[in-house]
Amino acid sequence: MNIEIPLFEGFDDLDAFGPFELLRNVELAGGPFRVALVQLGAAPTITTSHGAVLTDIRPMSSDPAAVDLVVVPGGRWSNPDEPAGVRAECAKGELPRALAALHAAGVRMASVCTGAMLLSAAGLLAGRPATTHPLAREDLRAQGVKVLDARVVDDGDVITAAGVTSGLDLALWLVERELGPRAAATLERGIDYERRGTVWRAETEAAAA
Amino acid sequence: MNIEIPLFEGFDDLDAFGPFELLRNVELAGGPFRVALVQLGAAPTITTSHGAVLTDIRPMSSDPAAVDLVVVPGGRWSNPDEPAGVRAECAKGELPRALAALHAAGVRMASVCTGAMLLSAAGLLAGRPATTHPLAREDLRAQGVKVLDARVVDDGDVITAAGVTSGLDLALWLVERELGPRAAATLERGIDYERRGTVWRAETEAAAA
Repeated sequence: MNIEIPLFEGFDDLDAFGPFELLRNVELAGGPFRVALVQLGAAPTITTSHGAVLTDIRPMSSDPAAVDLVVVPGGRWSNPDEPAGVRAECAKGELPRALAALHAAGVRMASVCTGAMLLSAAGLLAGRPATTHPLAREDLRAQGVKVLDARVVDDGDVITAAGVTSGLDLALWLVERELGPRAAATLERGIDYERRGTVWRAETEAAAA
Repeated sequence: MNIEIPLFEGFDDLDAFGPFELLRNVELAGGPFRVALVQLGAAPTITTSHGAVLTDIRPMSSDPAAVDLVVVPGGRWSNPDEPAGVRAECAKGELPRALAALHAAGVRMASVCTGAMLLSAAGLLAGRPATTHPLAREDLRAQGVKVLDARVVDDGDVITAAGVTSGLDLALWLVERELGPRAAATLERGIDYERRGTVWRAETEAAAA
């Protein structure tokens, strides 16, 4: 299972590093994940929303056969004057278009925090259940999304998480779904964490209705 | 209040990025913290334990007047064969010596996860209460440290946190102590988190005894 986490100027550090560390722990323990921090362009460096500078970031896959899941971080949505971050990437449009193309070809999409605004800009959330950072929920609702008050919303091919640290819960849920609860519990102990919140699942919700 | 987070080859991503993001959020909101990722040497890049590559990392302060608090991340303690990480830094000795010198000059020290092994190598934990990642507690105890089963242990000039995500609890506690509970609660909401565990405090413990 190939997992890519696309970075962009102003992405939120923990939005990306939470899922990155947890999912990479599966890979480092010999599990069936291959996880990479990637970028759409070829920038020599990318600066996070908090000022860390990353380099040697490999290109994002454009071939849908090379990637199974994309986990999109958020960052700097709440300030419209920010020159970089999710809002800027939505305006530029290249990253949303790339996400839309991959999704149309069958690649699963996940988001952390205001990364949901990028999935929305890609046209992937309209009329569907999703979550995002509490401070961005009104904005996401205004875009026609069925915004839920949950830390993780699994709608099958599109999975969204709430604010920053809910990226940990997203990753643990993905691990449970793919590899089972034992693997997820081991990862929890590794980072001294306990998952929070019920995962909202479309399939279970439909069965219960 | 100047806060430095020293990075080294093989440091654990979240150990550093948890406190970095939270403490930097104080600074970015106009608060009285100045927070920097630093390094002892002058390496052009530093690679995390999970494979992210950081660059443009400024030098660590050697002048104790320039720094009030150092937050030391952990990383890769559990595997003795790892060529990089906390175990390698303990063996090299330069970082522990730098930490010892700063502490002797009055700089407060904090650690996340197996960063406590670096504080121990610096001679700062012998006979004192401290915590670390559950998997490293026996090793720390064997070094003469009074290891406690707590997420955060505040012993005044030395504050230690347990595994990876307890770095969030450490940072929130530091913010509460320095700026009050309102500031800490605001930060919690910002990262969609709730602090876990009672902070073990030497002063309160002494008063209750």
